[in-house]
Amino acid sequence: MISVLDHGYVELEDSMASDLSVVNAARVSFNNHHLKMEEGDDKLIRFLMKNKHGTPFEHNAFRFRIKAPLFVFREWQRHRWSSFNEWSGRYSELKPEFYIPVPKNVRTQTGKPGAYTFEPTRADVAEAFIWRLEKQSNLAFGEYEDAINGGIAKELARLFLPLNIYSEMFWTVNARALMNFLSLRNADTAMFEIREYAEAIEEYFDNEMPVTAQAFVANGRIAP
Amino acid sequence: MISVLDHGYVELEDSMASDLSVVNAARVSFNNHHLKMEEGDDKLIRFLMKNKHGTPFEHNAFRFRIKAPLFVFREWQRHRWSSFNEWSGRYSELKPEFYIPVPKNVRTQTGKPGAYTFEPTRADVAEAFIWRLEKQSNLAFGEYEDAINGGIAKELARLFLPLNIYSEMFWTVNARALMNFLSLRNADTAMFEIREYAEAIEEYFDNEMPVTAQAFVANGRIAP
Amino acid sequence: MISVLDHGYVELEDSMASDLSVVNAARVSFNNHHLKMEEGDDKLIRFLMKNKHGTPFEHNAFRFRIKAPLFVFREWQRHRWSSFNEWSGRYSELKPEFYIPVPKNVRTQTGKPGAYTFEPTRADVAEAFIWRLEKQSNLAFGEYEDAINGGIAKELARLFLPLNIYSEMFWTVNARALMNFLSLRNADTAMFEIREYAEAIEEYFDNEMPVTAQAFVANGRIAP
Amino acid sequence: MISVLDHGYVELEDSMASDLSVVNAARVSFNNHHLKMEEGDDKLIRFLMKNKHGTPFEHNAFRFRIKAPLFVFREWQRHRWSSFNEWSGRYSELKPEFYIPVPKNVRTQTGKPGAYTFEPTRADVAEAFIWRLEKQSNLAFGEYEDAINGGIAKELARLFLPLNIYSEMFWTVNARALMNFLSLRNADTAMFEIREYAEAIEEYFDNEMPVTAQAFVANGRIAP
Repeated sequence: MISVLDHGYVELEDSMASDLSVVNAARVSFNNHHLKMEEGDDKLIRFLMKNKHGTPFEHNAFRFRIKAPLFVFREWQRHRWSSFNEWSGRYSELKPEFYIPVPKNVRTQTGKPGAYTFEPTRADVAEAFIWRLEKQSNLAFGEYEDAINGGIAKELARLFLPLNIYSEMFWTVNARALMNFLSLRNADTAMFEIREYAEAIEEYFDNEMPVTAQAFVANGRIAP
Repeated sequence: MISVLDHGYVELEDSMASDLSVVNAARVSFNNHHLKMEEGDDKLIRFLMKNKHGTPFEHNAFRFRIKAPLFVFREWQRHRWSSFNEWSGRYSELKPEFYIPVPKNVRTQTGKPGAYTFEPTRADVAEAFIWRLEKQSNLAFGEYEDAINGGIAKELARLFLPLNIYSEMFWTVNARALMNFLSLRNADTAMFEIREYAEAIEEYFDNEMPVTAQAFVANGRIAP
Repeated sequence: MISVLDHGYVELEDSMASDLSVVNAARVSFNNHHLKMEEGDDKLIRFLMKNKHGTPFEHNAFRFRIKAPLFVFREWQRHRWSSFNEWSGRYSELKPEFYIPVPKNVRTQTGKPGAYTFEPTRADVAEAFIWRLEKQSNLAFGEYEDAINGGIAKELARLFLPLNIYSEMFWTVNARALMNFLSLRNADTAMFEIREYAEAIEEYFDNEMPVTAQAFVANGRIAP
Repeated sequence: MISVLDHGYVELEDSMASDLSVVNAARVSFNNHHLKMEEGDDKLIRFLMKNKHGTPFEHNAFRFRIKAPLFVFREWQRHRWSSFNEWSGRYSELKPEFYIPVPKNVRTQTGKPGAYTFEPTRADVAEAFIWRLEKQSNLAFGEYEDAINGGIAKELARLFLPLNIYSEMFWTVNARALMNFLSLRNADTAMFEIREYAEAIEEYFDNEMPVTAQAFVANGRIAP
């Protein structure tokens, strides 16, 4: 398990992944099967990556358990070639856990459309933001609890809850779709918070399929 | 444009849809092409629907413009075989528009897992909920505005915002995926608010592809 | 490895599959995680299957290696929510292996559109068909080899080859898409030859996820 | 309708496509809607293309009717993010139309794995190939007809048929998936015959969405 942000994490629950699966999927084209990685196989993976032969990277799977704030899940769940199951706010009560950034991650936006950059705010601005976000999050959760205790359905009571509340999900994805995720989310243009998660995902990916992950990075994180 | 809930709507911006496209897609199997719906074509559509021949229903497209609260979009965007573009809270400032249910739609949940039902709460409970939800929504938006005015990046300021704030999106979908959406969202088990949207979607669908829509309803809203 | 038809097979190369993954994906909704199947879990799986809650069945993967004739692969590769890599006839020479049905599987078609049935032909008709199919297959392969030996590119030489020649592929799929495949291919309306493969696939599925597979069969092989 | 190869064609049956749809889908992010293309919109499309913002290119649809040989359809139908319906060889009798290349397109393969190139064969080799392919195609079709006339089911009789026989299909696709198709099939590494089809597809695309198509070409035909 890799901790992310203040209360979140990424955990690889199970996987069916290896560099060898890429090589064998590619070599089925030549009816040629290996039992382990052999000389030339690293080169083949780099060739496939560079030339955008994507399908051999699909014959594997990673199942992650992830805890993250809703505004992060909102971006994450737009990745359609993968599978999601999330904690249901309709039928289950959420917990009072909210993402509150540390001061150095409270930022301001500069630049113009298409080329925004972010930089830390002044320390006092950061502190005020953190203080007010904590207060408002607690207030919102209080309203949520009161509503439930007063007999309001959970699915309606959650309307009080802000986008920084934490939730949990299962995410199952193959290496090709995972690289697409990384190309967009472990990137300079990505929002800081989802990038923290993408880095954790990439760490697991690199551990399970090191040759593939390195070829991906060498290729400028452009997914095949 | 069809108004939905207090501030939302569904609008069919453009479409490429007809019952004839279903018939011709199915009849390409027999190399048989019609210029208009003919005798027997209604029956063919009902046959395809009932026997789960799904692909002939895919050769069409609907592009909708939708305004709905975030908790509705969260469910909607889990439908992966379709296309989404949504208003970006990272780069654009959201408006102070929040979904506040009318009293008769403030509900309590009864029953047990797998068989929940919902019914209206007592009038005073509903009124108190509405009053507090309005107040809390305004409070949250005030914090959001203060943060932006104080120099906090919009992508962070939005952490204050609750799930009942409105957003807008484009949704493009073919009739098969649209029927899958309706089978899950224009259903007794669906959340009231997304069902209101699903009814509007079904109205447009019925208008563009009446024979298909009626066959779908006659089939118990089970998507092919 | 399960032998199918005269030269084909299905082999499960690797998998990440269990009934438990279904239960845990469903229970993430309630933030409830099990380490092994417990009382009530079978019932939950049957509930999900019957009520078409499909996503919990996606958090797993099966990687198959399959050898089948081209007319079987043509149907198989229309299943889009899965991954394929096939032996390349552009760059690799195919082998002289052809599907030739045994006499009892040579059939005639009766009935009318939408309700065809098949039954064995007379013995002499079957024998003549087999004899001519063998002869024609060999003739075609002879032309293919001559073309390659004469310097014609493999990608063009293969134009001689008939639809009953064997090829090989990798197929990776999750249980939900696999059940969709079975609902269409392990069915009375399916072509006999692909049904033989579907039965082999179902055997592996039943072995890896027995509770899910039995719930699927009990549900009339209707995929969730 | 654009004729392709000796008996094939591509025809755009219907579409819901415009450059404006890209711009408006992108600008929904900024809650900004145009009624026609305005100054700066071309630049926005080029920006989206270059920076791989793919989703705004999905809110449109093209429905094509295509006639091509089976070995071309085999490659085409691997493109999963689109919809297919093809003439059924199980229930309908195919016609005796076969792709026979003209002499200059009869080619030999040179180079080595990963870097193959093709060049025309000697004239006499080409002529012999053509003559034998024609003869073998006719022979195969004769067997097919004899089998059907003798009572063999069409689905089995088609086992005689070679990969160069023509079939027809409907293909419905959005601009993003269409560009992915073009990036792989209107490319130097693509097989000559499918590239001919890809060029016809690109012509229709360029006609319907000229700014997008030009931005795609300017971007080296790399799909966003």
